[in-house]
Amino acid sequence: MVQHTQTRLDASFAALADPTRRGVLGQLSRGDASITALADKFEMTLTGMKKHVGVLELAGLVTTEKVGRVRTCRIGPCRLEEEMKWIAGYRQVWDARFEALDGVIDELKRQEKARGRKKRK
Amino acid sequence: MVQHTQTRLDASFAALADPTRRGVLGQLSRGDASITALADKFEMTLTGMKKHVGVLELAGLVTTEKVGRVRTCRIGPCRLEEEMKWIAGYRQVWDARFEALDGVIDELKRQEKARGRKKRK
Repeated sequence: MVQHTQTRLDASFAALADPTRRGVLGQLSRGDASITALADKFEMTLTGMKKHVGVLELAGLVTTEKVGRVRTCRIGPCRLEEEMKWIAGYRQVWDARFEALDGVIDELKRQEKARGRKKRK
Repeated sequence: MVQHTQTRLDASFAALADPTRRGVLGQLSRGDASITALADKFEMTLTGMKKHVGVLELAGLVTTEKVGRVRTCRIGPCRLEEEMKWIAGYRQVWDARFEALDGVIDELKRQEKARGRKKRK
C-alpha cells in the first residue's frame, strides 16, 4: 500500500514536471481533444505529443480512447489527492520549523536587549 | 514571470518525483543533517545522496552549508506555494468537469425513465 502510493507519487509528480504536460491537462480540463489537435495546439510533432500523453496516462491523469483512426484524450481518474496531501503535510512541517526558528531569533533579540539595558545602568 | 514560474514548477515537481528525495525532505523537516548522515539513513552512497541533494537544492527545497569537511543540509526557502496552487486549481476544474458529466448522466437517466413510463402507458 505504502509502496503503491510511493510509485503513484513518483509517476504523478514526474508527469507534472513539464510545462507541455501541465498545459495539456489544462487544455483537457476544458474539453476532450485528439492527439492531433493537442500536437497542433502545442506546436509539437505527433510523436512528441504521444510521448507526453503516454506519461500522463501512466499517472492516471489522462485516459485515451481510439475510435477509428482518432485517439481522443480526456482527463483521467487521478484527482491529485495524494499529491495535494503530501504537499500540504510538507508545508505544515515547514511552517512549524520556521516558526520555531523565529521563536529562537526573538528570544536572542530579547536577551540582547536585556544585556543592553544592564550595560546602560 | 510566467516563464520563471514554469521553470520553478518543472524543477520542484521533478524534485518531488522520487521517494528518496521526498524522504530526505521529511527527514530535514525534523532537523538539519549532514550529507553523510542522510546517505547512511537512506542506505545510499555519498555520491548518490549528493546528486539527490543537488536536485533538491536546485528547486530551492534544500539549502546546504559547508563548514570544514561537513556539508550540512536544511530545508530551503521553497514552501511549495505555487505547486499547491497549481494542484488546487487543477482539482477545481476536475471537480467541475466531472460534476458536469454527472449532470449529463442524471439527465439521460431521467429521460430514459420518462420513456419507460410512456411505453408502459
